[in-house]
Amino acid sequence: MAEPTRILLDESEMPTRWYNIVGDLPEPPPPVLHPGTHEPVGPDDLAPLFPMALIAQEVSTERYIDIPGEILDIYRLWRPSPLYRARRLERALGTPARIYYKYEGVSPAGSHKPNTAVPQAYYNAAEGVRRLTTETGAGQWGSALAFACSQFGLDCEVWQVAASYLHKPYRKSLMEVWGATVHSSPSELTGAGRAILAEHPDSPGSLGIAISEAVEVAASDPGTRYALGSVLNHVLLHQTVIGEEALAQLAKVGDTPDVIVGCTGGGSNFAGLSFPFLREKLAGRLAPTIRCVEPAACPSLTMGEYRYDFGDTAGMTPLIKMHTLGHDFVPEPIHAGGLRYHGMSPLLSHILELGLVEAEAIAQVECFEAGVLFARTEGIVPAPEPPHPIAAAIREAKRCTETGEQKVILTAMCGHGHFDMGAYDAFFRGELVDLDYPKQEVRDAMARVPVVAG
Amino acid sequence: MAEPTRILLDESEMPTRWYNIVGDLPEPPPPVLHPGTHEPVGPDDLAPLFPMALIAQEVSTERYIDIPGEILDIYRLWRPSPLYRARRLERALGTPARIYYKYEGVSPAGSHKPNTAVPQAYYNAAEGVRRLTTETGAGQWGSALAFACSQFGLDCEVWQVAASYLHKPYRKSLMEVWGATVHSSPSELTGAGRAILAEHPDSPGSLGIAISEAVEVAASDPGTRYALGSVLNHVLLHQTVIGEEALAQLAKVGDTPDVIVGCTGGGSNFAGLSFPFLREKLAGRLAPTIRCVEPAACPSLTMGEYRYDFGDTAGMTPLIKMHTLGHDFVPEPIHAGGLRYHGMSPLLSHILELGLVEAEAIAQVECFEAGVLFARTEGIVPAPEPPHPIAAAIREAKRCTETGEQKVILTAMCGHGHFDMGAYDAFFRGELVDLDYPKQEVRDAMARVPVVAG
Repeated sequence: MAEPTRILLDESEMPTRWYNIVGDLPEPPPPVLHPGTHEPVGPDDLAPLFPMALIAQEVSTERYIDIPGEILDIYRLWRPSPLYRARRLERALGTPARIYYKYEGVSPAGSHKPNTAVPQAYYNAAEGVRRLTTETGAGQWGSALAFACSQFGLDCEVWQVAASYLHKPYRKSLMEVWGATVHSSPSELTGAGRAILAEHPDSPGSLGIAISEAVEVAASDPGTRYALGSVLNHVLLHQTVIGEEALAQLAKVGDTPDVIVGCTGGGSNFAGLSFPFLREKLAGRLAPTIRCVEPAACPSLTMGEYRYDFGDTAGMTPLIKMHTLGHDFVPEPIHAGGLRYHGMSPLLSHILELGLVEAEAIAQVECFEAGVLFARTEGIVPAPEPPHPIAAAIREAKRCTETGEQKVILTAMCGHGHFDMGAYDAFFRGELVDLDYPKQEVRDAMARVPVVAG
Repeated sequence: MAEPTRILLDESEMPTRWYNIVGDLPEPPPPVLHPGTHEPVGPDDLAPLFPMALIAQEVSTERYIDIPGEILDIYRLWRPSPLYRARRLERALGTPARIYYKYEGVSPAGSHKPNTAVPQAYYNAAEGVRRLTTETGAGQWGSALAFACSQFGLDCEVWQVAASYLHKPYRKSLMEVWGATVHSSPSELTGAGRAILAEHPDSPGSLGIAISEAVEVAASDPGTRYALGSVLNHVLLHQTVIGEEALAQLAKVGDTPDVIVGCTGGGSNFAGLSFPFLREKLAGRLAPTIRCVEPAACPSLTMGEYRYDFGDTAGMTPLIKMHTLGHDFVPEPIHAGGLRYHGMSPLLSHILELGLVEAEAIAQVECFEAGVLFARTEGIVPAPEPPHPIAAAIREAKRCTETGEQKVILTAMCGHGHFDMGAYDAFFRGELVDLDYPKQEVRDAMARVPVVAG
């Protein structure tokens, strides 16, 4: 046996600090602004929602932040995660390229989300918080936070978008096994929810509404805080354990990536894998092309404008400078529920603006075809999000077949699809169509974004 | 960091041969008998259903059988599987015991079943078979065979028990992602199915009926064979990679097991973990107590008689000497679908008769409580079967708390519960009850078992 198929690290090789790319950027990302004053938001503005330790991480410029031992103890349940050489996929494609994927589906919740859910629960518990609230759409984030709260004895209350609550009942069951309380959103439990239900008793809900409900409950109770699963700097920070491990794993087999692809919804999985490689690129030690892959139906990076906009639909959050399709843009109901956010991580948006990464959009049928090919060769059934970078990797690999190049392609495989089989059913029934760029809808939504200097 | 939480092996440490315990037993297991003649069944009787390589393994007395490289190549997608030290569970129990679990849920299909599905598909493909048929109840086996067939380009046709087909649609989706064709059983495609449907158009099906359908199709087409996921000697043989790895993993941390517990439905997961340890016990190198754990509602080992009986409900299979509750015994619909078989592996039955292992039955509410505690401490949500040995391990650990003994307990964690969340829902709704020993039902069923000399 020559090179391994799964490249494993010992627990002793697990990263013990997170990498904060802000400390290495030629210029810092623009500040987050108060929606009323348009002045930069300070720690006190965020204190009702987040513990001070996370607020400090959110604005930190330190290049490295140590991971507390209590968090490492839980990471150890699944980390270091495996890096796979996709030999069987390569063979099926007949490509000279070498394809690697970093697999995060081995976590208890089945995705990369526990990498940040665990530290978020830890820092909240350490500051005496007793309950965390959050929203969940596709369900990956709510599951991850439920798991993390179970590890620190925190109550966890999740507002699950009504359509998802109805159609993905087993996501709810999973959260309940870990002790969380799950509400269908909009709910009668909050002012925001009651207002929506008064007008639309059958509302299918939205991530924006669910955020409003979770934030409202957190802000109104001193023992409760709110947790967000992507977008924010501290979330991206926690995910960098993925890339640090992948660097060590590729070094073990003596390979360096030529192309890195990952899907971008809020940006945290992509950042987690790519930022440590970007550090190496900025330092001149590696030279990979680093590419965001997003759905053509929700193309915030390839079509959105880089402007200040709200993080939620209702316009209650601070103003964030990011690539946005307009905060009230509603994407088509594609099955990659984790890639339907109107905006993008402000840090990743800034990095795209600096020209350090590039972006590509792929329509969903090609992605599901890639997901099925992946399942039939590599065995793992992907969640509906990672087939976007898998499709991008297959495009690269096919180009290599034509040119004969032996490129090394690294892909982020952020989770399994065990709770998303309905999406595959729809694909096999031929119900999925390629949704084109929503040009007019985005133009209309962008016209409703407030104009902010800067 | 002292001892690791996950004990990993490199691919280079993966077992390269299966262990056949028959070669080490003081007496061989009794032969399988032809249902008409009551004479031992020969290879020719089995040839319409199985390839010659598997028939040879079924009757082999060689202690070791080499694993072909093509099978090792696929095992590498998830093997060696991790052995975990259940530190967080130990802490929750306040026990001085050390609990380890060998986790097979990391396979693509989420259970131990691919360990035998892959070799079964390989040997069939090598002998020119083009299609495999099988039955599936809980769905774990059908999924595993679908995955394995996708790796060798074999067609795979699965008869899924109608009640399961209806209530576990995502198991069907999973099989379809891997390219299998799934039928609700009873189906109109076979004589056996049509006969049942003519009498009971709304039949919920049974494993026995589904076996009849899969066997009928295999027997009637020279390019088709049948595959079974448990019970038979060659299936138990393939599963011994689990125990060989666990031996090496425990040696790495310098521990030796005092108690080994595993659940027994058909016996293959239990045998896979325990037989290599039993070899060490027979050789005087280790001295663990080895205990089968079964549901109180389907107690073939603790209540069944050791007699010749049929493997299927309709009485079409050869006669097998095994612990049986009677071939037409119908257990209550407990949620551990993989533990509802009326009989038991003849090899494991023989080993129990020899006094080399012991057996214990536990009712389902205690098992689900154990499963939820496991999920909330160790993170992994177990399938409904492995909570049986988890409950047994917790009983042992609590005894250690009383006595102060620092016993080492090794548990088989044969799969995750992502496709079984409905069972947890029922548990949380309080719908599960403790089903007592089905004494009268078993007495009645045993009275209908044919009397065979030997």
